[in-house]
Amino acid sequence: MTARTTGRILPAPPLVIDPAASRRGFLKRAALLSGGALAASGAARAGAGPSNLPPDVPEWNRTLGAPILTSPYGVPSKYEANIMRRESPGLTRTPYSSVAFTPLQNLFGVITPSGLHFERHHAGVPDVHPAEHRLMIHGLCRAPRIFTMDDVMRYPSVSRIHFIECGANTGMEWGNVAVPTVQYTHGMLGCSEWTGVPLATLLDEVGYDTARGKFILAEGADGAALTRTIPIEFALDDVLVCYGQNGEMLRPEQGYPLRLVVPGVQGVSSVKWLRRLKIGDTPFNTREESLHYVDMMPGGIHRQYTWIQEAKSVITSPSGGMTLVDRGYHEITGLAWSGRGAVRAVDVSADGGRNWRRATLQAPVLAKALTRFRIDWQWDGAPALLQSRVVDDTGFVQPAIRQLREVRGTRSIYHNNAIQTWRVEASGAVSNVQVG
Amino acid sequence: MTARTTGRILPAPPLVIDPAASRRGFLKRAALLSGGALAASGAARAGAGPSNLPPDVPEWNRTLGAPILTSPYGVPSKYEANIMRRESPGLTRTPYSSVAFTPLQNLFGVITPSGLHFERHHAGVPDVHPAEHRLMIHGLCRAPRIFTMDDVMRYPSVSRIHFIECGANTGMEWGNVAVPTVQYTHGMLGCSEWTGVPLATLLDEVGYDTARGKFILAEGADGAALTRTIPIEFALDDVLVCYGQNGEMLRPEQGYPLRLVVPGVQGVSSVKWLRRLKIGDTPFNTREESLHYVDMMPGGIHRQYTWIQEAKSVITSPSGGMTLVDRGYHEITGLAWSGRGAVRAVDVSADGGRNWRRATLQAPVLAKALTRFRIDWQWDGAPALLQSRVVDDTGFVQPAIRQLREVRGTRSIYHNNAIQTWRVEASGAVSNVQVG
Repeated sequence: MTARTTGRILPAPPLVIDPAASRRGFLKRAALLSGGALAASGAARAGAGPSNLPPDVPEWNRTLGAPILTSPYGVPSKYEANIMRRESPGLTRTPYSSVAFTPLQNLFGVITPSGLHFERHHAGVPDVHPAEHRLMIHGLCRAPRIFTMDDVMRYPSVSRIHFIECGANTGMEWGNVAVPTVQYTHGMLGCSEWTGVPLATLLDEVGYDTARGKFILAEGADGAALTRTIPIEFALDDVLVCYGQNGEMLRPEQGYPLRLVVPGVQGVSSVKWLRRLKIGDTPFNTREESLHYVDMMPGGIHRQYTWIQEAKSVITSPSGGMTLVDRGYHEITGLAWSGRGAVRAVDVSADGGRNWRRATLQAPVLAKALTRFRIDWQWDGAPALLQSRVVDDTGFVQPAIRQLREVRGTRSIYHNNAIQTWRVEASGAVSNVQVG
Repeated sequence: MTARTTGRILPAPPLVIDPAASRRGFLKRAALLSGGALAASGAARAGAGPSNLPPDVPEWNRTLGAPILTSPYGVPSKYEANIMRRESPGLTRTPYSSVAFTPLQNLFGVITPSGLHFERHHAGVPDVHPAEHRLMIHGLCRAPRIFTMDDVMRYPSVSRIHFIECGANTGMEWGNVAVPTVQYTHGMLGCSEWTGVPLATLLDEVGYDTARGKFILAEGADGAALTRTIPIEFALDDVLVCYGQNGEMLRPEQGYPLRLVVPGVQGVSSVKWLRRLKIGDTPFNTREESLHYVDMMPGGIHRQYTWIQEAKSVITSPSGGMTLVDRGYHEITGLAWSGRGAVRAVDVSADGGRNWRRATLQAPVLAKALTRFRIDWQWDGAPALLQSRVVDDTGFVQPAIRQLREVRGTRSIYHNNAIQTWRVEASGAVSNVQVG
C-alpha cells in the first residue's frame, strides 16, 4: 500500500476543482489566499510539544467551541453548503413531478447520506401522518387485511444494503446530450441500509393464492396514487416493505412512513408512501407501466416490463466539471452495481478503451448494492479518455453506448447502462464526451 | 421465515411504548383516538381498484404534495422530532465538556445516522475552516511535514464500516446506578462508514523511524488540544485519517474536517479535529491518559492505557422505558460488537441467564463494526429478565457485571462491557435492573 505512493504524491496543490459545486474548488480558492502564510507559520512550530503551544495556533485551538447539542439532530458543516441535491433546469414542467440528483462527485464510500439521496416524485411529497397511514393487502388471498404502522413494525425485520436507481438514470445520454457532471448523468442513484419486513411474510400472513397469485400491484398514498406491477417471484425473493433507511425512519421524500424496496429493479417499482398491495393473476398494465416507463425501440415498438437495472459503473472522480491541477499521481474512483447480483470486477481505461487495468473493489462487495472501486493513475499531462467497465457475477459485461444503440436505437429514455467516458484535456479540464 | 410468524402475530395493538421519546408511543396515542374509525372505513374499500378510489381516501392521496427540493439537504419527518441525541442532566458541569447520547432504542440496522451519532467534547465544537486547517506529522521521522486538506484528500483512500464507543459507555452501571433507557446506558456508541487515508500511508510518507518509532501522539485542534497515545502497531494496522463519514464530509461535532478513527479502541483515541501526529519512542502520558481515562482498580491502583473495547452486546428493543402492550409474539433485537474482531455469536435469555437461545446475526458481519441480532420471542405475560451475551471471533465471552466487579471493584468508570438486563413486569413495563 505505502510503497506505491511514496515519493509519487506532489505536495500542496489541490487535486480537482468542480467550479459548479465543489468543496475542493472552494478549498483551493481559499488556500490560494491564505494557505501559504499559514503553512509557513505552521512549519515554524514543527517541534512544539503538547504543553508548549506557540501563540500562532488558530483561534479555534485556543478557545471554547460551541456547546454540546447545538444541533440535537446534526447537520453538515456550513463549509459544505454547496453539496446538495440539484434539479436539472428545464427537465420537467413542474416541481411536483420532477427529479433532484445526488451529488455523486462529492460522496465517499457507498452509503448515500439520506439528506442527499435523489428524489423523484409524480405529485410532490405528501405529508402522511404515520398514525393514520394504512397498508391494505387484498386480491387473490384468503384473508385480506389492513395494517397499521404498528402492525407492520411488529413483524420480524431484516436490514439490507441495496442501491436504488431510477430507470431513467443516464437517460439524456441516449440522445447524445452530454450533460456536464456526474450528478446529472448518474445522480438518480443512491444506496442505503434499508430495514423492514420481507414482503413474503406479509403475503403469507394474508394467505395469498399460491396457485393463481402471479403479480402484485403496489400503490402509493401520494396524489399520483402511483401504481406498479411486481412479479410474485420478486415479491417472494428479496422485496422489503421498509420503514427504515440508514438507521432511522424513512425521510418524507423517500416514502415516509412506508415504502417498497425492490432490489435490483428500476426505482419506480420501489413504491413510496405504500398504501396498497393487490395480488392478481396478470400484470396490471397501469399508466406508469404502459404510457411511461416503457422502452421505445426502433420501428415504433415498445418494450414493457423491463424491470432489471443491468450492470453499470461510472467514475465519480475525476469527472465532468472537475479540473486536474497538475500531472502525476491521481486516484481514480467510482461506483459499480448490478441489479442481478454482485460486482465481480471493474476495469478502468485511460485511453478510451484500448487498454484496461483492473481496479480494487472496496469490501464488503454486496449483491444489488453499490460497490466502490479505486485505481491509481499517473497522469502524464496528455489528453486522456477515462472509462470504467463492470462485469457482474452473472458474467454480464457493461456495454458501450454503440452496442446499446445497435439494439435499441436512440429514442429510449430508460435503462442506459453504457460505459461513461470523461475526457481530460491537456489543461486538466474534465468533460463528458461520447466515445464508441 | 414465514411459517414462524403465521397466526402468531396479533393484530392492531402497537408493540411498545417509550413514554419519554418514542415514535411508537406517539403512534399508539394517536391510533387510540383515530385508528378504529379509519380502519373501519379502510375495510369498506378493500375491493377498490386503482381507478376506482373511494371518496374517503386521505387528503394526501388526493392532492399535490410539497414540491421537489423543499429540502435540498433532506431532514427527518416532523413526526420524528422526538428522536434526537440527548444529554444526561447533571452528568457534566458544563455544556462544553459533555456527552450527548445516541437514541439506540429508535434505530434500525447498524449504520448510525450522522445526525444522531453521539457527541463527546472536551472544550466544545470548534469552527475549523477547512482551507486553513493543517495536519503536522513530526517527531521520529526523516521528513516532517505539514499537510493541507487537499494534500490529505489526494492520497489513495479506503472506506470501512467501524463502530466508535466511548470508553465510559455504560459507566454509570459500575456504581449500580441503573439509568432508565438504553440511550443513556449504551448510547455513547455509533457505527459509520468512514473514509480516509490509512495512517500507515502518511507515516511512510514522512519516513518514520522504523527502529525507534513505537508510539504516535495524536492532538486535536479544539480548545482542549486533546492528546492521546496510539501504539505504532495500531497505527500501521487499520487506523484511518478520516474526512468522510457515511458518504459525506465529517460533521462538525465529529471532527470536521479531519479526525482519526482507531478501530476497536475507546472513542477518545479517535481524536477529532486532528491537527498533529508526533512519532515517539515511549507513551506520551498526557493528561487525558493519566488523570482521566484510567481504570480505578481496587486498592487504589490505576490501570493506564487500556485501549481495547472488549466484546459487548445490548438488547435495544424491548429496552428500558418501553412497555409491551400484549402477550404473544415479539421480536427481540439489539447490537453486538467487539474491538478485537468480528462477532461470532449472540445468545439471548428471557430468564436472567438460566436458558439461552442463539440469535440470528444480520449479514454482513464485519470486524470492529456493530452487528444487528434478532430473535423471536413469545411473551407469556409473566415477569421476564431479558439479556444478550456475545462471543467474538477470539472466543471472548461477554461477562456478567459480577465477574467484572470481582476483578475491578466498583470505582471504575471505563470499559464496562457487562451483560445488560432488562426486566419485563407483568404489566409489560420494561426497566433497567442489575442481575448476577
